[in-house]
Amino acid sequence: MTDIRDSIDRFDPRFDASGLVTAIVTDAGSGVLLMVAHMNAEAIRLTQETGQAHFWSRSRQALWRKGETSGNGLTMVEMRVDCDQDALLLRVTPAGPACHTGRRSCFYRRVEADGRLIFLDDDA
Amino acid sequence: MTDIRDSIDRFDPRFDASGLVTAIVTDAGSGVLLMVAHMNAEAIRLTQETGQAHFWSRSRQALWRKGETSGNGLTMVEMRVDCDQDALLLRVTPAGPACHTGRRSCFYRRVEADGRLIFLDDDA
Repeated sequence: MTDIRDSIDRFDPRFDASGLVTAIVTDAGSGVLLMVAHMNAEAIRLTQETGQAHFWSRSRQALWRKGETSGNGLTMVEMRVDCDQDALLLRVTPAGPACHTGRRSCFYRRVEADGRLIFLDDDA
Repeated sequence: MTDIRDSIDRFDPRFDASGLVTAIVTDAGSGVLLMVAHMNAEAIRLTQETGQAHFWSRSRQALWRKGETSGNGLTMVEMRVDCDQDALLLRVTPAGPACHTGRRSCFYRRVEADGRLIFLDDDA
């Protein structure tokens, strides 16, 4: 992979054909992976301007602010970008559970080799 | 988001139109986010069977085993799936730097509000 994007000091997101980049959200305090979502240019701009995480919903085809209905918003502490600038890391302070199921993280199930899913404790 | 996928105990990945799910890779020891890639059904199967992380390269349109050229493979410790089963978490033990730039993580730049990128120490 040779791409100038890995060495430049200018933010130049590589949006996919749908105009999106992957956004990975971690708890800035614990480092725990909370959720994965997608952002378009407008979601990035709003997140930077307001300090509150905004995403693009692919299923609803709409911009949304995390927490606008649940109250469980995500206050951004830091935004990082990966080497080829097609993924963002949002380090946040969550106001509550990040997952719509009420769990801290969306990644609450372990995949077994036989295809079973094992539900994990919320602090696993 | 109401979807049976968030409560079932059976692995049923929701592949996108290209047959892919997002794969987030963290260091199982430190919890640090290392990289983001994509997996198709074959990459998932090979990762489960061999214990070594395999991905699908969208740019090269080819299956690859991480480390097959660099030597910096990723030994899987655990696989998790998110609530709607369109993203996987691979907790791994890395054999070396995960990023093709030689850094531990692909997320080595902070995005500033004015669009500048600040290069971070490798242990940030």
